[in-house]
Amino acid sequence: MPTNTLLAVDQNTITDVALEQMSTTANPRLKQIMDSLVRHLHDFAREVDLKPEEWLEGIKFLTAVGQTCTPNRQEFILLSDTLGLSSLITSLHDERTRDSSSTTASLLGPFYRQSSPQKALGDSIVANPGVAEIAVYGRVTDAQGRGIPNASVEIWQTDDEGVYDLQKEADLVDARGQFHADAEGRYWLRTVTPLGYLIPMDGPVGDMIRAQKRHGYRPGHIHFLISAPGYREVITALYMGYDDHIGSDTVFGVRAPLVVKIDEKDPKCPIPGLKSIHFDFQLAAASSDGSGRVGADPSQILKK
Amino acid sequence: MPTNTLLAVDQNTITDVALEQMSTTANPRLKQIMDSLVRHLHDFAREVDLKPEEWLEGIKFLTAVGQTCTPNRQEFILLSDTLGLSSLITSLHDERTRDSSSTTASLLGPFYRQSSPQKALGDSIVANPGVAEIAVYGRVTDAQGRGIPNASVEIWQTDDEGVYDLQKEADLVDARGQFHADAEGRYWLRTVTPLGYLIPMDGPVGDMIRAQKRHGYRPGHIHFLISAPGYREVITALYMGYDDHIGSDTVFGVRAPLVVKIDEKDPKCPIPGLKSIHFDFQLAAASSDGSGRVGADPSQILKK
Repeated sequence: MPTNTLLAVDQNTITDVALEQMSTTANPRLKQIMDSLVRHLHDFAREVDLKPEEWLEGIKFLTAVGQTCTPNRQEFILLSDTLGLSSLITSLHDERTRDSSSTTASLLGPFYRQSSPQKALGDSIVANPGVAEIAVYGRVTDAQGRGIPNASVEIWQTDDEGVYDLQKEADLVDARGQFHADAEGRYWLRTVTPLGYLIPMDGPVGDMIRAQKRHGYRPGHIHFLISAPGYREVITALYMGYDDHIGSDTVFGVRAPLVVKIDEKDPKCPIPGLKSIHFDFQLAAASSDGSGRVGADPSQILKK
Repeated sequence: MPTNTLLAVDQNTITDVALEQMSTTANPRLKQIMDSLVRHLHDFAREVDLKPEEWLEGIKFLTAVGQTCTPNRQEFILLSDTLGLSSLITSLHDERTRDSSSTTASLLGPFYRQSSPQKALGDSIVANPGVAEIAVYGRVTDAQGRGIPNASVEIWQTDDEGVYDLQKEADLVDARGQFHADAEGRYWLRTVTPLGYLIPMDGPVGDMIRAQKRHGYRPGHIHFLISAPGYREVITALYMGYDDHIGSDTVFGVRAPLVVKIDEKDPKCPIPGLKSIHFDFQLAAASSDGSGRVGADPSQILKK
C-alpha cells in the first residue's frame, strides 16, 4: 500500500491499520507474537471502553514498575507472577515438553543464583538449623524409573522465618546448595522447614495487590533445579501442604503433585531422628526446546 | 473459597483461578478492567504458545521501556502510540463524547506544555519564520455553527526542520503560543510549515520499529488544544496532506477530516500575501466526562 494513501482510522479499523503497518516484520515468529498481542490489546481496550484518564493511570503504573527494577529486584516478573502469566507460561512449557510422568514444573522465582555452595549427600544447607531441622530425600530417575547417577540437585529456600539469604545481606549465602545424587540416583540432605512470606509490597505491584484486597502471601516452599546430561532440566518447588496459603498462592505456583507433607517418623528416611520430606524427581529425555526457566537473575536483565 | 483448598492449576484453569483471587477488588471499575486485561493477556499467551525464553525477552523489553522514561521522555506512551493503542483510546473517547459534527480529536503528543506564550491575533508563534511562513485562520464555533467569543486556541508544532523547541534546549520556547478568538470566534495567526519527523529511535521502541521494518516517521502536523468555558476541550492536530507519510503515520494519529492543504492564494485569508491553511474548529457542549487527553507532560508522570 503506497504511503500517501489516506487510511480510514477509527476505533474499529485501527487494529487492521496497525497490523498492516507491522506486516513487514522480518522475523515470522516476532510478527505472529506482535499480531496477537496488538489484537488482544485493542480488544481489551474496546471491551472495557478504556477512558483516556484510565489509560494514563496504566501508563503511570507500567512506568513505575519499570523504574522499580534494579539488579536485585525484578518488578515486571513480579507483575507477571501476580497476574498468573508466569504460572501459565510454566504450564504451557510443561505441556509442550514434559513426558506424562515427569515432574511438574514451577516458577524459578527471583532468588535463584547460579553459583551455589557444593555439598556432600547428608550435609545441611543451613548454617544454623536449630530446632526446625528436617531431612529431604528421594531419587532422581528417568522416564522408566531408573536412577540417574550423579544427577545435580540444586536447592534454595527461605529460612524458618520466611527470609532468603539475599534479602538479609546481598553477599550472604545460606539455605542453598548443590548436591549430586549417588550411583542409584538417590539424594538426601538436611535443611529447615521453610516459612511462607509476603511478596515485596513496597512497589507498584504491592499497590495493585492492596487495591485487589489480596493477602500477598506465598505458602512455604523449597525450590529445586534438577539436571543431568541428556535430560531436560526441571525447575520446580515443593509446597508445604499444611500452610494456610496453600490454596491461594499470590503467584499461582502451587501444583497439586508438588504439595508435600512432613513425615514425623519415616522409617525409610536415610537420616534417622529427623522429621522428613520424601520426594522423587523424574526427568524427561532432553529435547531441542529452549530454556524452561520462567524467571531470571534480576542482575542479568538490566545488563546491556 | 477457603485458602487451604488446593486448586487445580494448569494452562487452562489458571485464568479462572487468577480471576477468582482478584474478585475481592474493592473498586468495581478496576475489577472490570483487570478481569478483561488478565483474560486477554492469558488468551494471547495461549494463542501463540508463548515460550519461556520469549516471555523473558518481553520482560527485558518492558523493563527497558520503563527505565528509558525520564521527566523529558515517556517511552511507554511512545510504545502505546506505535502499537495503535493511543489512537484507539482517542477514537473511543471521541465516539463516547463527541457531537457528530464537532472536530475529530488526535493525540496530545509528548510536546505539549501548559504555559504557552500569550499572543495577539495575527502574531507569529515563530521567532524567525523566514521563507516558510504561512497563515492559519478560521473560526471556533459551537454545534450550531455560532462563533464562540474569546475561545482559547493553543498551538504548538515543529519548526520547518521537524524539531520541537524542547528538543533543541529544555528551556527554549518557540513555535508555540496561546491565542484568544475575537467576538465572532475568529482566529488568525502566522507560523511556518511544519516538517514531519522520525520518532525517538534510540530506545527500545526504536528497536521494535526497526525489527518491524517500519519507517518510523510522522507526517508534518500542527497541534491544537481548543477550549472555552461550557464546552468540551478538543485536542487535535492538522496534518499536511502533501506529506509522503500522510498514509502511514507511525503513531496512527492522522484522521481524514484533519488533513489540510496549504492554499497558495486564498482571497479570504485575513493575512494578505501569505500561503494559508483554513480550518474551523467546532466544540461540543461540556459533559461530565473526564479528561480526553491521550498523552501527558512526561515530567508529570514521574512525579510521585
